[in-house]
Amino acid sequence: MPHIELSPDLPGIRGAMAFRPETARPMNALVEILLRGPNSLTPGERELIAAYVSSRNCTHYCHSIHGAIAAAHLGGDEVTVKQVKTDFTQAKISPKLKALLAIAGKVQQDGKLVTAADVEAARKEGATDMEIHDAILIAAAFCMYNRYVDGLATVQPEDEAFYRDRGKRVARDGYVTVSEEYLAAHPKEPVAAT
Amino acid sequence: MPHIELSPDLPGIRGAMAFRPETARPMNALVEILLRGPNSLTPGERELIAAYVSSRNCTHYCHSIHGAIAAAHLGGDEVTVKQVKTDFTQAKISPKLKALLAIAGKVQQDGKLVTAADVEAARKEGATDMEIHDAILIAAAFCMYNRYVDGLATVQPEDEAFYRDRGKRVARDGYVTVSEEYLAAHPKEPVAAT
Repeated sequence: MPHIELSPDLPGIRGAMAFRPETARPMNALVEILLRGPNSLTPGERELIAAYVSSRNCTHYCHSIHGAIAAAHLGGDEVTVKQVKTDFTQAKISPKLKALLAIAGKVQQDGKLVTAADVEAARKEGATDMEIHDAILIAAAFCMYNRYVDGLATVQPEDEAFYRDRGKRVARDGYVTVSEEYLAAHPKEPVAAT
Repeated sequence: MPHIELSPDLPGIRGAMAFRPETARPMNALVEILLRGPNSLTPGERELIAAYVSSRNCTHYCHSIHGAIAAAHLGGDEVTVKQVKTDFTQAKISPKLKALLAIAGKVQQDGKLVTAADVEAARKEGATDMEIHDAILIAAAFCMYNRYVDGLATVQPEDEAFYRDRGKRVARDGYVTVSEEYLAAHPKEPVAAT
């Protein structure tokens, strides 16, 4: 049961964001830019970073929904998503993404663990400064989203179909569009796509 | 030395935010609402939560600047700020803020550590659902800001006077105002108040 009174119809971060629309808006704007904005990393690659970090934080709602969004972007490839969460070194992803995931995994623990050698390894695989920056910020941001979802003890459904359905929709329409549709249907509540 | 090419004139989060204005804007909007927006917790109390979490994450730039902003809000009381960072149970702060700091400290480690008993203890000291929500989200958000600052290996000055001067200014003018002034003076760069 959530620690504060959240709408029972809105699992995970959605209930938390509906409780506090003022903070939900910039949080949603940030995730939209980071995961779907113009970028040389594909949306699928960025969602994999988000799912990986959330899985290391053991936040069921976040790693499930971002895993499902990643799979939708990757043509339904749930095997790769699962492999990234369990051991990304064996996943069918680019060496560059592996190097960025290694950095993201360190940020998830503590930003100070990232070494010049980690960054150099990513550069050798072709990562740009912007890609390194974004991998670090995606990892940092999901340390926020995950703690927000867990710290409030939000409801986190177990049913994989729930995440699969919603993941397809967010992959297609984006965080902001899905939020705005929700807002139009529930004018007194806000803004939470995942 | 930072892991990517950041402006050498902008320490801490400011260099990182200048590198990526698109993500800086929602990050600054979030901190402005959380730490300075309308709230039954004073700005000084909220800055203490930010400084405490940043100090537990050992992020020198963030705990120094938010400690300095807190001190400015508290009429220059640097002793209380230092006490909150080292052992808040002995600080001259309200029992309610102590209960919220206990929750924030758990969120800093892992949101799942927050128990119903922690929340009940805060309620007994008069904390509202909104205050509990905001303490959790401030703690979660600083786990992002701290990792962002550390993960990029940004420059974090040692000089206390640097933070004291800037802290007074941000306490007076706010995150957004200070950012906008900066933006007007450096039209190609953005938006980073702390």
